[in-house]
Amino acid sequence: MSQQGKFIVIEGLEGAGKSSAISLVRDFIHAKTGAEPVCTREPGGTPLAEKMRDLVKIADNTDPLCDKSECLLIYAARAQLVANVIQPALAQGHWVLGDRHNLSSIAYQGGGRGLMPLVQSISDVILGDFKPDLTVYLDINPKVGLERAALRGELDRIEQQKLSFFERARTAYLDVAAKDDSIIVIDAEQPIEQVHKDILTSLAAQGWA
Amino acid sequence: MSQQGKFIVIEGLEGAGKSSAISLVRDFIHAKTGAEPVCTREPGGTPLAEKMRDLVKIADNTDPLCDKSECLLIYAARAQLVANVIQPALAQGHWVLGDRHNLSSIAYQGGGRGLMPLVQSISDVILGDFKPDLTVYLDINPKVGLERAALRGELDRIEQQKLSFFERARTAYLDVAAKDDSIIVIDAEQPIEQVHKDILTSLAAQGWA
Repeated sequence: MSQQGKFIVIEGLEGAGKSSAISLVRDFIHAKTGAEPVCTREPGGTPLAEKMRDLVKIADNTDPLCDKSECLLIYAARAQLVANVIQPALAQGHWVLGDRHNLSSIAYQGGGRGLMPLVQSISDVILGDFKPDLTVYLDINPKVGLERAALRGELDRIEQQKLSFFERARTAYLDVAAKDDSIIVIDAEQPIEQVHKDILTSLAAQGWA
Repeated sequence: MSQQGKFIVIEGLEGAGKSSAISLVRDFIHAKTGAEPVCTREPGGTPLAEKMRDLVKIADNTDPLCDKSECLLIYAARAQLVANVIQPALAQGHWVLGDRHNLSSIAYQGGGRGLMPLVQSISDVILGDFKPDLTVYLDINPKVGLERAALRGELDRIEQQKLSFFERARTAYLDVAAKDDSIIVIDAEQPIEQVHKDILTSLAAQGWA
């Protein structure tokens, strides 16, 4: 029987370099296991969860999405993704590579929106002990990250928040990372070659068979 | 200045007669205040919340909505409705008449799905002390109610649940009603004239100025 797969998540603010880190880690997993990982993105990653993502991204001035509703929608999408994609894949021995997961809610909704008690209580009830085997958090000054993100084109509803929102999110990312050994903090303001080298060093240090 | 309006909710299982009760109470409110109440339905009642409702009602066999996700979506819709419709209307002195509210989640997701701890913790964080001034719960044996509902046509994803689901929901409705004076239990298996008479008696007994 195949053994349980590993769940690796890439986290970071806009412009931190998540996409290229995901490519790098996907190649690492392929080289290690001989198989492609199941790649997910959050919010989203299942047909229904992608529809929930759309609701989070809409900017409707006549019916603005309230902060609590945003938080609940994101967890509804996460519950769906974990139940229907991530847990079944891991149980079948696949590796799963996530573009964001629960730590994003702690950072953006908990830190950014100031809803930490809501985030923590929902997270406890929805996820319980379920968490990634490893999270790679790409740390960047939000001013630098947003400048990079702006170069990519139009910003969505969340990317349009004020700088202070992202500063609170970064603080929350770093606070949690400082207390959790399964979260690796990578300095994402370094040259990309060094960022990738640091990520590969972290992966190698896990000692996965 | 106008005083705060009242929030009245009609609750009950499928086929309990909510629609005709809503008409009756709407007329009562109009006669009493000289104005139409703001009528809401849950899940739904705002443009975004109606889109969330659609996701709850979809039966997608390739990506079945998991129970926790259903519960979170319904609360996301409720948070949006309370923030953008119900609370502003009450604050402006309007009366609000709801086709379902939080008690439905306690009954269906808490009782029916067995998610009472999740429902209670989300309810506490999302709604706090906010609750209807009066809830009229139309009590019916689910076997009788579902027969009536089936006569109306095709059943949606929730209406297609097994009888035992609705029996657990009814038990939860009655348990909460027994402990909360703001919930009036009406025997909805009586002739409709008597049901309406009982509802009007309950409304009259509130002593609203």
